[in-house]
Amino acid sequence: MDFQALAGFLDRLADAATEAIMPHFRVATAVENKKQEAFDPVTEADRGAEAAMRKLINETWPGHGIIGEEYGAERDDAECIWVLDPIDGTRSFISGIPLWGVLIGLLVEGRPALGMMAQPFTGERFSGDGKQAWYAGARGRIELRSRPCPSLGEAVLFTTTPALFKGGDKSAYERVESSVRMPRYGTDCYGYCMVAAGHADLVVEAGLQPYDVVALIPIVEGAGGRFTGWDGGSAAGGGKVVAAGDPRLHALALEKLAGA
Amino acid sequence: MDFQALAGFLDRLADAATEAIMPHFRVATAVENKKQEAFDPVTEADRGAEAAMRKLINETWPGHGIIGEEYGAERDDAECIWVLDPIDGTRSFISGIPLWGVLIGLLVEGRPALGMMAQPFTGERFSGDGKQAWYAGARGRIELRSRPCPSLGEAVLFTTTPALFKGGDKSAYERVESSVRMPRYGTDCYGYCMVAAGHADLVVEAGLQPYDVVALIPIVEGAGGRFTGWDGGSAAGGGKVVAAGDPRLHALALEKLAGA
Repeated sequence: MDFQALAGFLDRLADAATEAIMPHFRVATAVENKKQEAFDPVTEADRGAEAAMRKLINETWPGHGIIGEEYGAERDDAECIWVLDPIDGTRSFISGIPLWGVLIGLLVEGRPALGMMAQPFTGERFSGDGKQAWYAGARGRIELRSRPCPSLGEAVLFTTTPALFKGGDKSAYERVESSVRMPRYGTDCYGYCMVAAGHADLVVEAGLQPYDVVALIPIVEGAGGRFTGWDGGSAAGGGKVVAAGDPRLHALALEKLAGA
Repeated sequence: MDFQALAGFLDRLADAATEAIMPHFRVATAVENKKQEAFDPVTEADRGAEAAMRKLINETWPGHGIIGEEYGAERDDAECIWVLDPIDGTRSFISGIPLWGVLIGLLVEGRPALGMMAQPFTGERFSGDGKQAWYAGARGRIELRSRPCPSLGEAVLFTTTPALFKGGDKSAYERVESSVRMPRYGTDCYGYCMVAAGHADLVVEAGLQPYDVVALIPIVEGAGGRFTGWDGGSAAGGGKVVAAGDPRLHALALEKLAGA
């Protein structure tokens, strides 16, 4: 496994996605509704970007599998599986807010091994391999380090919206939110990258899919953080997740979610 | 009153604020707490930017008044009063999220006559004079027009956080939120500008100060929208406000807030 070659390939995938997406950002376009009742925006950008990335993967790594938000799974018994969310944060995307991102993850034998979040409007890219993490953007290319935060009372917490949590999960989330210094909503994938970059401390979410998290795990852990399910196990399958920049804070958040 | 000269002056103020603020964005700095219990972030950036803007105003328009978030009021009986919030969205600012902005408004005889929101990280500036509004940024300089949205059921709604609203205001807000197509939180001043730009439809907030809104009113109204208090009167004093891109939607939101 040549991680250097794969890391360069992440940039090529992000370039292809950017090219497909940007003509549709902040342009009045038809938003298709997958379901009639609930609002579930899917744009041409989303589909075009995933198709472009799949083409590049199939040409370059014909033995690799792919799991994507828009077009499902192919070769998902392969050793290496790319996990793609062309536009994470479609609500941000359709309302012009530059906190959405292209998520590109690589599972090796089921483990998140490499990931990138690209934000094409700001021109920022966050990437990681679980041991290191990097930022490329206006400030050049720098290594990312999360910041120390040894207590919930000092933590800046992100979540998409408190409405994500239902029943007992809602009580659990509220125990965490009421313990932190400051909660902030609507941060989508950008929030996890701010934790990796040391500008925030904690993300707690629920109801996620694998393509929402596989790309982000190697970034947060590469920057020195911890990223698991609420039960402390692997977050690679999505569901209920906790990401923290400081492993001590991660442990405290798990305890609080469990009822402490 | 030479509006062209004043419009150019807005850019000079935004340049001065940008220079004072950007060295502090995404850098680990001490966050001072104004109050010991509640978390009320004030950065050096905030103070430096307001001081720089006040200096420029006092040098250029010695007869004008100034009201600012950090340093209070001077000559607030003048015909022309600048209303400044150097960093609107300090929660975004301290957590690395590029949705904060420099707010620069001008009251003429108590009426919001000119405004700018500058986002130094993305390099975007939104401005307006109540009759027209403009965007300057990556896409060049374009005139802003809000989009039609004749019903709550089609509207994208922004608010900072539902926790802003207490008691009867909370019920009123919830009547609006439950009627719209999609709510989104944490957008700060950026949300009002997305309404002006036609990417979203409605902002409902409460507990605001004049310096939170004076700059934004001429932008939203210049783009074709309406921006008032919940009672339909002037929003220039802050408090509870409603901004909508489509005046028909604005009327429906007022009715819903009043209990319809």
